[in-house]
Amino acid sequence: MATTGVMRPGHIQLRVLDLDESTTFYKDVLGLVETGRDAAGRVYFKAWDERDHNSVVLRQADRAGVDLIGFKVKDKATLEQLDKDLQAYGVATERVPAGELLETGERVRFTIPTGHVLELYADKTDVGNGQPYTNPDPWIPAAEHGIGPHRFDHCLLYGPNLEQTLELFTQVLGFHLVERVLMEDGKSLLAMFISCSHKAHDLAFVCHPEPGKLHHVSFLLGSWEQVLRAADIMSMNRVSIDIGPTRHGITRGTTIYAFDPSGNRFETFSGGYESYPDHQPITWTFDEVGPAIFYHDRKLNERFLSVVT
Amino acid sequence: MATTGVMRPGHIQLRVLDLDESTTFYKDVLGLVETGRDAAGRVYFKAWDERDHNSVVLRQADRAGVDLIGFKVKDKATLEQLDKDLQAYGVATERVPAGELLETGERVRFTIPTGHVLELYADKTDVGNGQPYTNPDPWIPAAEHGIGPHRFDHCLLYGPNLEQTLELFTQVLGFHLVERVLMEDGKSLLAMFISCSHKAHDLAFVCHPEPGKLHHVSFLLGSWEQVLRAADIMSMNRVSIDIGPTRHGITRGTTIYAFDPSGNRFETFSGGYESYPDHQPITWTFDEVGPAIFYHDRKLNERFLSVVT
Amino acid sequence: MATTGVMRPGHIQLRVLDLDESTTFYKDVLGLVETGRDAAGRVYFKAWDERDHNSVVLRQADRAGVDLIGFKVKDKATLEQLDKDLQAYGVATERVPAGELLETGERVRFTIPTGHVLELYADKTDVGNGQPYTNPDPWIPAAEHGIGPHRFDHCLLYGPNLEQTLELFTQVLGFHLVERVLMEDGKSLLAMFISCSHKAHDLAFVCHPEPGKLHHVSFLLGSWEQVLRAADIMSMNRVSIDIGPTRHGITRGTTIYAFDPSGNRFETFSGGYESYPDHQPITWTFDEVGPAIFYHDRKLNERFLSVVT
Amino acid sequence: MATTGVMRPGHIQLRVLDLDESTTFYKDVLGLVETGRDAAGRVYFKAWDERDHNSVVLRQADRAGVDLIGFKVKDKATLEQLDKDLQAYGVATERVPAGELLETGERVRFTIPTGHVLELYADKTDVGNGQPYTNPDPWIPAAEHGIGPHRFDHCLLYGPNLEQTLELFTQVLGFHLVERVLMEDGKSLLAMFISCSHKAHDLAFVCHPEPGKLHHVSFLLGSWEQVLRAADIMSMNRVSIDIGPTRHGITRGTTIYAFDPSGNRFETFSGGYESYPDHQPITWTFDEVGPAIFYHDRKLNERFLSVVT
Repeated sequence: MATTGVMRPGHIQLRVLDLDESTTFYKDVLGLVETGRDAAGRVYFKAWDERDHNSVVLRQADRAGVDLIGFKVKDKATLEQLDKDLQAYGVATERVPAGELLETGERVRFTIPTGHVLELYADKTDVGNGQPYTNPDPWIPAAEHGIGPHRFDHCLLYGPNLEQTLELFTQVLGFHLVERVLMEDGKSLLAMFISCSHKAHDLAFVCHPEPGKLHHVSFLLGSWEQVLRAADIMSMNRVSIDIGPTRHGITRGTTIYAFDPSGNRFETFSGGYESYPDHQPITWTFDEVGPAIFYHDRKLNERFLSVVT
Repeated sequence: MATTGVMRPGHIQLRVLDLDESTTFYKDVLGLVETGRDAAGRVYFKAWDERDHNSVVLRQADRAGVDLIGFKVKDKATLEQLDKDLQAYGVATERVPAGELLETGERVRFTIPTGHVLELYADKTDVGNGQPYTNPDPWIPAAEHGIGPHRFDHCLLYGPNLEQTLELFTQVLGFHLVERVLMEDGKSLLAMFISCSHKAHDLAFVCHPEPGKLHHVSFLLGSWEQVLRAADIMSMNRVSIDIGPTRHGITRGTTIYAFDPSGNRFETFSGGYESYPDHQPITWTFDEVGPAIFYHDRKLNERFLSVVT
Repeated sequence: MATTGVMRPGHIQLRVLDLDESTTFYKDVLGLVETGRDAAGRVYFKAWDERDHNSVVLRQADRAGVDLIGFKVKDKATLEQLDKDLQAYGVATERVPAGELLETGERVRFTIPTGHVLELYADKTDVGNGQPYTNPDPWIPAAEHGIGPHRFDHCLLYGPNLEQTLELFTQVLGFHLVERVLMEDGKSLLAMFISCSHKAHDLAFVCHPEPGKLHHVSFLLGSWEQVLRAADIMSMNRVSIDIGPTRHGITRGTTIYAFDPSGNRFETFSGGYESYPDHQPITWTFDEVGPAIFYHDRKLNERFLSVVT
Repeated sequence: MATTGVMRPGHIQLRVLDLDESTTFYKDVLGLVETGRDAAGRVYFKAWDERDHNSVVLRQADRAGVDLIGFKVKDKATLEQLDKDLQAYGVATERVPAGELLETGERVRFTIPTGHVLELYADKTDVGNGQPYTNPDPWIPAAEHGIGPHRFDHCLLYGPNLEQTLELFTQVLGFHLVERVLMEDGKSLLAMFISCSHKAHDLAFVCHPEPGKLHHVSFLLGSWEQVLRAADIMSMNRVSIDIGPTRHGITRGTTIYAFDPSGNRFETFSGGYESYPDHQPITWTFDEVGPAIFYHDRKLNERFLSVVT
């Protein structure tokens, strides 16, 4: 079978400081579609072109950051097999019952060596992308509400133990290494970009002493012109832009980094090449970390390595 | 494992009427990179951003058309397994020895119910995309030679027996159905678009009485602006444009159809959504075949269903 | 003074067959802003980025077409001088009192040799573009309502006597010839594109036996991507597209031609070069009229020369 | 007459520290076309789409900066009239004989209150844009050599006495004020953007104690995607980027600022609205100077007000 195992990042649960303010932001500025609220007070969103019920879940908390990231797997049998594989590899897993997250099936939860909580799941209700499955139009008015990304695409996580994490993702979860940045020693991983598909990255990590931190959650746009439109909308709404519009050397994507009202960094990006598992990974040396991250400026800004939630 | 089995379309061998004229066309107008010639007189090309040695092979013949399409599989073990699976399914296969096609490993060849010759292979020499694997730039000058597509992306084949073909691809080769067009009876397949990845299509078929015909071979561009540039370059070089720039309803891609000097139709396109195997396929009814194919004109031109090679 | 005399096309009054249907079309599909209705039942519109009160005026009638086109001149003194110049040149003029057209000053009206009614005026109320004149944003939400062109840009008129018309515009009204298409005789004008600014055209004519006909009224978009969006919106709303997206050889603009509900052709376009009066005009020979008009197809469609209102 | 008087910025003479290095830069990185060298050692360039012989002239010197900016006027009679008008206004003028600058007619030279040397001229040899004046294509291969701007568009000058300078340009030279930034006092000019056409700016000034300084010379690109391509080419060639890609609040243009090898800042930009003399100028208050200049970041970088040549 051509696409098996882990298919894609499916949901991310973010902590926000003020749920009302954040809900307005994710709905009207970022332009996600609110799809539900649960008894725990969490607010659920999807991007307009996603078909599953939710991809972003907001939870009110006293500090910002990420609670968990969920990956959708091919089917229930795959979920069972991956759970066994994880345990066989020595990773403790637990089950979260279906429905704990709205419209989402049973999840296999585990913590990776960087300290982040990951989940696998096989089922989430198809609520469609606002178009029928018969004779659809290519886009819908909701695509132009706020920034209007097509989907939750990936996230960049900060934490320790990148080598062990890479081993786990490649040997158990079927990811392949797409690009990496090396430390000054020319061997250790400063950063890695990994894929379970032919996207240039489904997940990325930067080496960081504190575990479980979020650098950014990323949303896909349709074009470089949509990146400009996103930057304009950010400015109109006084969103704090970290950097961009610019291009990444890594993945080639064109991008903006900005902050949500709680200080969680998010990215709206477009483009990037396709990576297949037979492709030799790309390596960036420590002295070229500048263009690797910000291809035009050719140097990191001070916030890139220090500001995380 | 997340990406397994058949990974992607890897090569297509086209028949051309005048090899010199066609070589100039594919090199200087379409903007592929010539990578070799073999003892049989075939000329090999790759798109600038492809890493494998070849993706388009031209063979002089007295009629235009397609000889064969090759798909790259994950590895040698996958190749052996798929060969066994095909035979078990009742498909006769044969082996083509490594090297018969330049820089390409052993191939498993078979004919599908539409009458087309397909091949699977696990190895093709990585000659790179003109950039080092360490600290690369996002693109290279060759990207601007001629139209300069990023890669050979897919092809659309005309032939009979679409239902059997779909069964073979989904049950044996791991493809999933992304979109389909139904005949007037509301049941039979007029056309189908299938994927072995999360591309909107890795291969497509239209129902046609004569087996083994080529509607078009398709090349990926980076943006809608590159589609415009391609149309301009076609006009500058008096390339016969069939239709476009326009948008497909199916896959949402933006596109131009045009003809090579032998009358083989090719497409240069950009965009399209991502399709995962858990996504419900999209269906187009017979009365909406116009916008399905040409979304802006909302009707087929006379050539779409009749001119093939 | 650098910009003097006639500044730009300012308004066009179109005849439509069903005012309600047309109002909905111009407002919600084309995306103009309705700015008023007068006692005569006319409906007034402006494009979002125009500052003057109106640029498109619809009048219900039993046949479609154009009533008149108005050009704004620098100031009242210019208006008086141009009236004298026209009369001295032998053109009969009449005065239309201020207010006959809403929020519009006195107009000097005359008929040109092609049989079209033109007007000059110096005053139209500035109602702004939806942004303050202090610290504005670059665009506003209304820019995304419907197709949302930036402005009424020019029109293409069909009628006889192009040579005399060119002489009038260049010798009296300060226009310069930017491009022209010659008849088979290599001398007579088949078409001409003239400018009173450094736009590639502020007005255009095609030679036609019947006087006073409208080929199309044209609206400016911001980019080629906006041209794609316009074509998508046309298809979503079942607007009849004549041709496009494509590029003109003349002016280099990227374009779509389509029809309003009454059969009046309109254009939404982007781009084109800048033309100054010291630039030598560009000439297209009769055998190249195909790429001159539709650069990609390199041939006229049957409607271009025959369908006018 | 619609376009009269001063038509457009026609040439700028820049001082560079190393003529060979700079010639390579302007030719191969910026992508101008070298059109000549004179006995004084100056090197002449034009942008690919310009028709006149030269628009950028490089002169070797021991400090970078601008020698002079020339504006093309409508014709010889206009030149004589403007010379008289300048003298009548109290501006001392001198004549520079035809041929002093290659392929350029007699010039009227004068110094404006900001300390910059300006010139008016009526004649410069038309060498074409690489396309015939009969049946041209919309662009040529040279358009893709280096960054390949369409034309020299405007420059931003730093110096004192903005109010007097504005008066000179509006009362004598026919410019109109398009946008302005006010000082903290809400009255004095911090910056002004003026036009002799319907471009959003043909010339701009920022108030600065030292006279005759250059902030940047600006070149026009065709689209936001070309702005991205320009930034990529800058990075590939290790050009020092000041800021961008981003958008200006003033003029709405999308832009990159970067430095030539001598430290002269240049801009490659696209877009911007059209400004006619009947349009009310836009005013930016001192507290909004951030978004006025850099709309996305909403604050000036430290270099904007301090680094000039």
